[in-house]
Amino acid sequence: MPQGQPLTVPNDGLTTKARRNAPLLAVHTGPGKGKSTAAFGMALRAWNQGFDIAVFQFVKSAKWKVGEESAFRELGKLHDEHGVGGPVQWHKMGSGWSWTRKQGSEVDHAETARDGWAEISRRIAEERHDFYVLDEFTYPLKWGWISVHEVVEVLGNRGGNQHVVITGRDAPQELIEAADLVTEMTKVKHPMDAGRKGQRGIEW
Amino acid sequence: MPQGQPLTVPNDGLTTKARRNAPLLAVHTGPGKGKSTAAFGMALRAWNQGFDIAVFQFVKSAKWKVGEESAFRELGKLHDEHGVGGPVQWHKMGSGWSWTRKQGSEVDHAETARDGWAEISRRIAEERHDFYVLDEFTYPLKWGWISVHEVVEVLGNRGGNQHVVITGRDAPQELIEAADLVTEMTKVKHPMDAGRKGQRGIEW
Repeated sequence: MPQGQPLTVPNDGLTTKARRNAPLLAVHTGPGKGKSTAAFGMALRAWNQGFDIAVFQFVKSAKWKVGEESAFRELGKLHDEHGVGGPVQWHKMGSGWSWTRKQGSEVDHAETARDGWAEISRRIAEERHDFYVLDEFTYPLKWGWISVHEVVEVLGNRGGNQHVVITGRDAPQELIEAADLVTEMTKVKHPMDAGRKGQRGIEW
Repeated sequence: MPQGQPLTVPNDGLTTKARRNAPLLAVHTGPGKGKSTAAFGMALRAWNQGFDIAVFQFVKSAKWKVGEESAFRELGKLHDEHGVGGPVQWHKMGSGWSWTRKQGSEVDHAETARDGWAEISRRIAEERHDFYVLDEFTYPLKWGWISVHEVVEVLGNRGGNQHVVITGRDAPQELIEAADLVTEMTKVKHPMDAGRKGQRGIEW
């Protein structure tokens, strides 16, 4: 519940407005629930301000998070048809990204993940979107498929006012150092520990 | 990224379906960001499944989270006008709840908070909604305005398949023990520490 007042005012030569409008790099990490969910909640707020939203899901299976995808597609339609909120694009790695003709069965996941990052870094260079969610993006970083150093460089040099939220466990230290906002979600208690199963409207 | 498989299957005599459909009591606590945001992200998923959503914000000021409120009001309209998703109600304590004629200036916050909880417990008894967000509800509990014991009892005895998510710092131990899912959000790094201010599309 931050009240919008910084604890200290840095001697960085920036005006309040410049500090206010600095594009945010946020990382949601840790073993608990809510990393992606909070990122989509942030995207909801950004959508409401008319921001151009792009979600890139670095997940193999399309089974999870279909609820958010479906809700955001409806929000995107609200923008396109009624001018409410901002436009929404939702891309997932699944069996190959929507913009490529490659099929997942023909390529390996590492290559598909690298294709995803290459596309994102092109879009960042073009300042295509206002708010990017790179969902589960820490995994290809962790597995060495994508260079953390390159990601930090591209994000560090991004122009305009492009906000980026990255989710996933075990965020690399270099990424954490580069981020403005880092939240760790810790599991205190989880219903699956008690043998309960995922359910409609909660897990999907 | 839970894959829907419980680690253990309890010897509780319940069928898989019963365990799957058990109503969830979730608590998002801790000093980090994302507690409310993740709750609204969960509500988005529930909305997409057609669940009846009710948000109760136990906050004094209406300045924060207007983005989510506005986005959810649009989602509620999508339901009412086009039958997409579920219905949405959004109540905030602010200067008095929408269902009461009392104005905040005439009553104290403790009484207003108690009125809010009384209404919620009536609705829970009537099984009015499928998914409740009690946003910042830990504060009136922490300050002793509302009895934690009563809350745990009402929630523990709730009928039907009513999911409840409670957010706020310093969730009382008795509530944590009663919850199915508890996530603690820990601040690793926050831009306001570096003197940056809240900004449009991010903080509101």
